[in-house]
Amino acid sequence: MATRVGVVGATGVVGQQFVVALQRHPWFTISWLAASERSAHQTYGEALRDKKTGARRWFCAEEPLREVLDLPVEAVSEFDPSRVDLLFTAIESDQARELEPAFARTTPVISTASAFRYEADVPLIIPGVNSDHARLLRQQQERRGWKGFIAPNPNCTTVGLAITLRPLHQQFGVQAVLMTSLQSMSGAGRSPGVLGLDIIDNIIPYIPGEEEKVQAETQKILGTLEENGVRPAPFGVSCTCTRVNVSEGHTEAVFVGLGQGASVDEVKEALASFAGDFAGEDLPSAPARLIVVRDDPFRPQPRLDRTAEDGMATVVGRVRADGVLANGVKYLLVSHNTKMGAAKGCVLTAEVLVSEGYIGGMAHDG
Amino acid sequence: MATRVGVVGATGVVGQQFVVALQRHPWFTISWLAASERSAHQTYGEALRDKKTGARRWFCAEEPLREVLDLPVEAVSEFDPSRVDLLFTAIESDQARELEPAFARTTPVISTASAFRYEADVPLIIPGVNSDHARLLRQQQERRGWKGFIAPNPNCTTVGLAITLRPLHQQFGVQAVLMTSLQSMSGAGRSPGVLGLDIIDNIIPYIPGEEEKVQAETQKILGTLEENGVRPAPFGVSCTCTRVNVSEGHTEAVFVGLGQGASVDEVKEALASFAGDFAGEDLPSAPARLIVVRDDPFRPQPRLDRTAEDGMATVVGRVRADGVLANGVKYLLVSHNTKMGAAKGCVLTAEVLVSEGYIGGMAHDG
Amino acid sequence: MATRVGVVGATGVVGQQFVVALQRHPWFTISWLAASERSAHQTYGEALRDKKTGARRWFCAEEPLREVLDLPVEAVSEFDPSRVDLLFTAIESDQARELEPAFARTTPVISTASAFRYEADVPLIIPGVNSDHARLLRQQQERRGWKGFIAPNPNCTTVGLAITLRPLHQQFGVQAVLMTSLQSMSGAGRSPGVLGLDIIDNIIPYIPGEEEKVQAETQKILGTLEENGVRPAPFGVSCTCTRVNVSEGHTEAVFVGLGQGASVDEVKEALASFAGDFAGEDLPSAPARLIVVRDDPFRPQPRLDRTAEDGMATVVGRVRADGVLANGVKYLLVSHNTKMGAAKGCVLTAEVLVSEGYIGGMAHDG
Amino acid sequence: MATRVGVVGATGVVGQQFVVALQRHPWFTISWLAASERSAHQTYGEALRDKKTGARRWFCAEEPLREVLDLPVEAVSEFDPSRVDLLFTAIESDQARELEPAFARTTPVISTASAFRYEADVPLIIPGVNSDHARLLRQQQERRGWKGFIAPNPNCTTVGLAITLRPLHQQFGVQAVLMTSLQSMSGAGRSPGVLGLDIIDNIIPYIPGEEEKVQAETQKILGTLEENGVRPAPFGVSCTCTRVNVSEGHTEAVFVGLGQGASVDEVKEALASFAGDFAGEDLPSAPARLIVVRDDPFRPQPRLDRTAEDGMATVVGRVRADGVLANGVKYLLVSHNTKMGAAKGCVLTAEVLVSEGYIGGMAHDG
Repeated sequence: MATRVGVVGATGVVGQQFVVALQRHPWFTISWLAASERSAHQTYGEALRDKKTGARRWFCAEEPLREVLDLPVEAVSEFDPSRVDLLFTAIESDQARELEPAFARTTPVISTASAFRYEADVPLIIPGVNSDHARLLRQQQERRGWKGFIAPNPNCTTVGLAITLRPLHQQFGVQAVLMTSLQSMSGAGRSPGVLGLDIIDNIIPYIPGEEEKVQAETQKILGTLEENGVRPAPFGVSCTCTRVNVSEGHTEAVFVGLGQGASVDEVKEALASFAGDFAGEDLPSAPARLIVVRDDPFRPQPRLDRTAEDGMATVVGRVRADGVLANGVKYLLVSHNTKMGAAKGCVLTAEVLVSEGYIGGMAHDG
Repeated sequence: MATRVGVVGATGVVGQQFVVALQRHPWFTISWLAASERSAHQTYGEALRDKKTGARRWFCAEEPLREVLDLPVEAVSEFDPSRVDLLFTAIESDQARELEPAFARTTPVISTASAFRYEADVPLIIPGVNSDHARLLRQQQERRGWKGFIAPNPNCTTVGLAITLRPLHQQFGVQAVLMTSLQSMSGAGRSPGVLGLDIIDNIIPYIPGEEEKVQAETQKILGTLEENGVRPAPFGVSCTCTRVNVSEGHTEAVFVGLGQGASVDEVKEALASFAGDFAGEDLPSAPARLIVVRDDPFRPQPRLDRTAEDGMATVVGRVRADGVLANGVKYLLVSHNTKMGAAKGCVLTAEVLVSEGYIGGMAHDG
Repeated sequence: MATRVGVVGATGVVGQQFVVALQRHPWFTISWLAASERSAHQTYGEALRDKKTGARRWFCAEEPLREVLDLPVEAVSEFDPSRVDLLFTAIESDQARELEPAFARTTPVISTASAFRYEADVPLIIPGVNSDHARLLRQQQERRGWKGFIAPNPNCTTVGLAITLRPLHQQFGVQAVLMTSLQSMSGAGRSPGVLGLDIIDNIIPYIPGEEEKVQAETQKILGTLEENGVRPAPFGVSCTCTRVNVSEGHTEAVFVGLGQGASVDEVKEALASFAGDFAGEDLPSAPARLIVVRDDPFRPQPRLDRTAEDGMATVVGRVRADGVLANGVKYLLVSHNTKMGAAKGCVLTAEVLVSEGYIGGMAHDG
Repeated sequence: MATRVGVVGATGVVGQQFVVALQRHPWFTISWLAASERSAHQTYGEALRDKKTGARRWFCAEEPLREVLDLPVEAVSEFDPSRVDLLFTAIESDQARELEPAFARTTPVISTASAFRYEADVPLIIPGVNSDHARLLRQQQERRGWKGFIAPNPNCTTVGLAITLRPLHQQFGVQAVLMTSLQSMSGAGRSPGVLGLDIIDNIIPYIPGEEEKVQAETQKILGTLEENGVRPAPFGVSCTCTRVNVSEGHTEAVFVGLGQGASVDEVKEALASFAGDFAGEDLPSAPARLIVVRDDPFRPQPRLDRTAEDGMATVVGRVRADGVLANGVKYLLVSHNTKMGAAKGCVLTAEVLVSEGYIGGMAHDG
């Protein structure tokens, strides 16, 4: 029996990415698309059409299937969430704060909004990295009296960083993290997004709120699950986040101080062999390799490496010793901010939650 | 009496930048242009002309003056350096290693090549930052039996970093530096330079040799002059150097650990009030402000800030506390890599050396 | 006595370009800045400030003068236009249709909006090209009972084309024009403007409404002034207008069929020697050369040529015979779309109108 | 029985594109890779490796297969072409002029060089457009006494233009063509290619030799096969060729005068229904549609449309009437310059020639 899913904010960029990640999914069937009043009472195909110019406002490389274009779009306000088994939301934080708790009364919600990320009973799950934090969802349900829950994804810049820190922390103990990001334009969305006039021949050295998010979220994701929530990882994280003239794929230059000495080869081995905590499960969206380590010193490059494992792998290169931090190593990574870092990462989280019985009664294999 | 200067490698990009920095100079007169055999025995204007297409191969925004275009170009091999008071060289390191000592027998040489940067009796001068290191030139002359000397400029990525570290080190004691650079394409020159195909929608995460240069040079520049050379500054420097799709102006994200606590305002004040060790002297190419500190969090941006003080200022922004390093601060800087970071920086060094009596007998005012 | 001018829409991009073109003007004094309610009752400097981030929303390369930043901004609705001698408007067409006639009752209006461009008693003036069309303004004033008038500028893509066609039409008779434009992003403004995501590694082949404007306006500008308006020039104009990844400066590839044969040299001579119908008058914003003809086959390039004569010259290159059209010639041109093609072009038009007595009683020399 | 093919110039960019187009080919087996002396006596994988940095110099999106990386590379000078059934050459014109006739004595050569394109007994074949011109190859063989032949592909800018003109000429009679191209950087190759510094925020308005090639080749391709070669098509072709900041995919703005009136719908229908002269044959590299016509006025865009049919389709949009040429229509097209416009187009030509018995004795089906 397929899991019926709904996408809220389906006509926006992230909503479209959900559609792409879901439209041929073996477990999930898109059965509800919701958007603003303006788009409602049309098919999805009609809602995407610019009425004035006739252009289709579709922003993914992959085309939407005919059957999805024919689905009706409903207004969010008219929807009964109990009709689906699972909701993916692609809406602004303000709206999420209001709508998601209402949805969660009956239905699990996996959200790209930051609204609930920092609440004590809300886990920030990166599939493969901290799936065990899902246990917080039970607490959340009990405390709030919900049948569903809210499981937000982390910020897209956090994702690649936390994935690479995970095996390092496990094996060597991370003590300090300093990171400079070179983020792609798709991370800023389209409303208003980044103007070509502003980014041509240029770098924008500031992304409001981003550094604080990466710092807090990395500590939460790599923290320890305790009675009353997650105890943050005990190491400091300090970032400088910039925007560069790249369409997709965040690049991050990372400096890490470790708790114990490790050779460059040991660090590379720890990264390359990290299988993720879903190893052994057969999840449709899981990459064969969570981390790809490259030896070519000119890699990773966002244009060449962002699509590794269909955007679900974090590609690492230039692993080398750092002489300043205690037991320091440094490396660069490229992570696809709108695949593993957003919609498709949420779908993989949903697969983990289904697999572990948090979604749907009909858990696979019992 | 004007100082007669020669430019070696005059038809290349850096040579052209020297021409621009010198052609209206109040102290210096271009009296010799040297290039390869192929360009010799023509006027400068003819040598710049592409014989096949008729295009002028000129790569600076500022146009060359008529009188410079009419100067003859000589072959390097045919030149008698004693005919000029000062030479600026814009040649590859291999060639520099061979030619510059020959020139220096009679004539001071200011060089953009890295060939001699790391020798004990060779100072790496950034004007305003460590002019006192010029005293090494006397040692160099004595030891090598030269009337002239070789004074190389530092790597363009080092320049902005060292300038900003100088006042911090003076006032608070620098303990640790971690830096990620986002370097412009002009830093790679034109032979072969960076292909549009490689940099479009992309970042190149590696610049061979660059990180080692920045690390060693920063320590030398901020080191202490002693009997037998410079004792490197005692703090560690660790870099990751990348190339981005920007034409001019290197951006650097810097994390600094200080020896004593300093508030963000104190750090900004230290940077903004740094006048340079040439304060009070009237040098034609010196910027009014060596460091410009901006409060707008969206600055510095390379396209907007690289031309501050005609490319001679280092523009700093986003000064804030870093929670990971001991007494940590972090900031971004933009530095014009082909102005202060190359030809025009060399001309300013020459002005300092003239002013302090290292070049020409006829020191200004004594 | 200085002419007092007002700028309506002063905080937007085009309004800022007016401020730059006017702030050191020898004839005109900015005495009124108007904007929306939101910006009113603040100084201009305050109105430009983003309240949330502290950034200054200023989009021109030239900085605003202190004295302009200190001017108060008024709400359009509260303004008495008779307090100034001349208004420059930088507002949307819808708003222009409503506001400009009200202003024109008392005060001359020079407008960047397209609202009135195609009305019979409204001239489309390119200074130097068809200043004689200004006589229509008298008709406009009589017919509409206005003391002022509305003089719109042409579309920025039309400007360079019409300037180069003018001398060709005069000397050889233009019969047919086919043009493909490669337009810069600044032509699309900032609301919403062109997203970096859409233009990176790309071309957008359609600019709604643009081709129709260029075709109709070129014929009107090069038409003949008659009793009841302008009889359009009798030749056809056909365009394809595209957007490319260039910040400023429209490039146009033009094919022209002439009424009589002309050699390439004759065509170049006709272009290069075109002095404009304001030749001999001393207008502050007029370029020394309206058209610059380049022989280097790799020119014009927008980045290198858009700033010729501070953006007031049209730079032409690659003039050569076309074998398809009767007496065909072809060439490329670069024209600065936000200087001669917009605000500064309007200021030059104002200078022409002052000089010829259409603005201000106190005509110079009279 | 598989056809054994060799690739000459295998390590260069175009050679790599041949490898990609051939490595899983159902008819052709790569059995020989040739390159310069420097690359010889290594495996292909070794020859691609940069010895200094360890980077693999591979420039295609598709990765080379393990079995291809293991093939030995031979020096061109040591090769016996009779060992293969077919050669693809990716070498410079000078070299082609010397080597290709020697190869052709025994072996068919399909070449990307322009050296022989304009000789009377050499057809310029675009598969689907003028396969009948292949008959010239018999003449070539007889006249020159060769067992093989030389069949060059057209210039990449010609390909999309000629493909779209073919059905228009067939149905309505083309009288005049004016075209402006906006060409991608990959068309310039990598030695030296287009520097990022030159194309950022810019257009380069001149590509030496390109316009002459497009004009002559279009007339030859659409010409009529006669006794002694091809009688060029009787219509004039006039181009302006420019370079823009796009990685792959040439965009062309085309104006066509037709011999008889045709509505926009008739023109679109003629384009969309053009099946190519290989319709009905089952060629592995042939696109399902040679021409894709789009109704969305914002298409074609190079980034979105260059990969249609794996780069083998020409995508047309904005078909509309032109009011200047007699029976004028205008449109834009995007054509993938390194797929249909180069290596993969050559492979499709080879499939046509195999299918029609020009290559290999063992023609499919008899």
